[in-house]
Amino acid sequence: MKPRNDTFLRALLRQPTDYTPVWLMRQAGRYLPEYNATRSRAGSFLGLAKSPAYAAEVTLQPIDRYALDAAILFSDILTVPDAMGLGLYFAEGEGPKFERPLRHENDVAALAAPDPELSLGYVMDAVREIRKALAGRVPLIGFSGSPWTLACYMVEGGGSDDFRIVKTMLYARPDLLHRILAVNAQAVADYLNAQIRAGAQAVMIFDTWGGVLADGAFQRFSLAYMRQVLGRLQREHEGERIPVIVFTKGGGPWLEEIAEIGADAVGLDWTVNLGQARARIGARCALQGNLDPMALFGGEDTLRGEVAKVLRSFGDPRNPDGTWAGHVFNLGHGISQFTPPEAVAVLVDAVHEQSRQLRL
Amino acid sequence: MKPRNDTFLRALLRQPTDYTPVWLMRQAGRYLPEYNATRSRAGSFLGLAKSPAYAAEVTLQPIDRYALDAAILFSDILTVPDAMGLGLYFAEGEGPKFERPLRHENDVAALAAPDPELSLGYVMDAVREIRKALAGRVPLIGFSGSPWTLACYMVEGGGSDDFRIVKTMLYARPDLLHRILAVNAQAVADYLNAQIRAGAQAVMIFDTWGGVLADGAFQRFSLAYMRQVLGRLQREHEGERIPVIVFTKGGGPWLEEIAEIGADAVGLDWTVNLGQARARIGARCALQGNLDPMALFGGEDTLRGEVAKVLRSFGDPRNPDGTWAGHVFNLGHGISQFTPPEAVAVLVDAVHEQSRQLRL
Repeated sequence: MKPRNDTFLRALLRQPTDYTPVWLMRQAGRYLPEYNATRSRAGSFLGLAKSPAYAAEVTLQPIDRYALDAAILFSDILTVPDAMGLGLYFAEGEGPKFERPLRHENDVAALAAPDPELSLGYVMDAVREIRKALAGRVPLIGFSGSPWTLACYMVEGGGSDDFRIVKTMLYARPDLLHRILAVNAQAVADYLNAQIRAGAQAVMIFDTWGGVLADGAFQRFSLAYMRQVLGRLQREHEGERIPVIVFTKGGGPWLEEIAEIGADAVGLDWTVNLGQARARIGARCALQGNLDPMALFGGEDTLRGEVAKVLRSFGDPRNPDGTWAGHVFNLGHGISQFTPPEAVAVLVDAVHEQSRQLRL
Repeated sequence: MKPRNDTFLRALLRQPTDYTPVWLMRQAGRYLPEYNATRSRAGSFLGLAKSPAYAAEVTLQPIDRYALDAAILFSDILTVPDAMGLGLYFAEGEGPKFERPLRHENDVAALAAPDPELSLGYVMDAVREIRKALAGRVPLIGFSGSPWTLACYMVEGGGSDDFRIVKTMLYARPDLLHRILAVNAQAVADYLNAQIRAGAQAVMIFDTWGGVLADGAFQRFSLAYMRQVLGRLQREHEGERIPVIVFTKGGGPWLEEIAEIGADAVGLDWTVNLGQARARIGARCALQGNLDPMALFGGEDTLRGEVAKVLRSFGDPRNPDGTWAGHVFNLGHGISQFTPPEAVAVLVDAVHEQSRQLRL
């Protein structure tokens, strides 16, 4: 069933919209006092992410507070490798880590795509619970990390500054990395399809670390496997089209190639000129982005001005031939935990108001 | 006086060369046991960087060990703000920090460009000592951080993941940031000119953090001030042309604009396709780069293959019209401290041998 506000879905499919829809990566997060309160009750980040009730609660918080045009499933990017048995944990004050990173040939050979209905049921439960709580207000976005981005964590065992361990595998034992990526591509496709069956109305692939790859390596080790995922995704559910967004942070050099793997929309970080990106790939895909998250720290007038720059850079979504280009407003990366919550209200209001003006 | 091996300078000036010259960012560094021995004797990184004798010793170490085509002054990127009185120090196990970061209007108003001959004399002494020790073997590169990159450290007070403090200033008080950048542009130009007078035969501006800026902000807050530096540089010394290299890490989206500020060469990180970069700006500038530093971890055969990819991507330096395009082989970022030293020998040999073959 279509949500009452389907502006976001329409923009992704390059259909006419009255205004530019907006949502924010990591919109359910630590900058919101109500999120921190729920997290305290849950006891830990994983306690929050693994409880369908809590996940639904925090997913709805930004929707209740702001006039956002989409909700995004609250979950962790590493649920899939956790379900593969790598042992996800969060060390105090650090990022995510794995107890059993993939380092040896035997570990890699034993890797298999999990059945998401069996081992990631808590995520599908969260999707169903969120859909019920949303009650058709705005669409729900499901998501997964890209095969390469998951592999970075799975091989490094956590975050990294230089990706030395996974890149050593890439250069020294590409066969092992290709095997991991093939399993990940299957796992990500299965996971996103399960989210779609549970009720996700659009899905997004976060290729957070694609931009650390060299030209050439990006195409072979990240893009090729996102293409595999796209090819396996169920693109329709209960008669509705399920749009897919692909976002490679730092992917500016490869926009044409990213636009060709079959996604409906391409996410852009803030280094990309939106007008140039539209000229390069706007005829094939909708675009999502790309305000610098730090613009939310500049005060109300500056923020309205920065919103205007992004909207004007994309320009009138109506093409000269009468078709529509699609633009979903977003940040170029996740919102900072230090963002003043009132700045988000200004941002959402500015996007809606200014983009209506642009259409007059 | 020209060095006996002037291949590097010729490539920067797009003159004919017998092979592609190579040097590595951070080539005098922690991956070399002899560097670590000298550092131990010096007692600390700053003790090393501030002693002309030690700086000369470590600058020469990679030149003695490998057939590199250029030496680069061993120094810290933050000598200039240190000379401005911000109090540079290194906390154990952390990056550089400033005791007195620029946070308040009064601090910014009081900022002034230092006289490099007075307050950075140890750097000029190092340049003279290195030139003497090199005895004309290969050219010596001087360097500085870009005005924006220095400002990042000066405002943040150290390294940063999100550049929140300096970007808050950028969005909320751009007047303060512009004042810092104007002083930095003067200071960087004075500093590089002093290095040139002391004997630097080429200079490089490291815009390490230019790539964290949004499109639009990069042009106003980084590129504009590098242009000011370029305009003030002494481009000839004792009858020899002094080539200038500008390197914005993550600057791929803006290559055309970077190529227009008056540098002789543009540095490229490994996300950039070298052949495409040549097509975009190769008629105006030489190019420097751009192997992924992690390729040095892949073993000898892989490394030779990755060198071949970089060289072939650039292609034959002879243009169809008989002029030459310039390519200086380098990494796309500083060499990792974990690099096996023997891999560097393979790399240098592969660049020289394969690039001679390309010219047959």
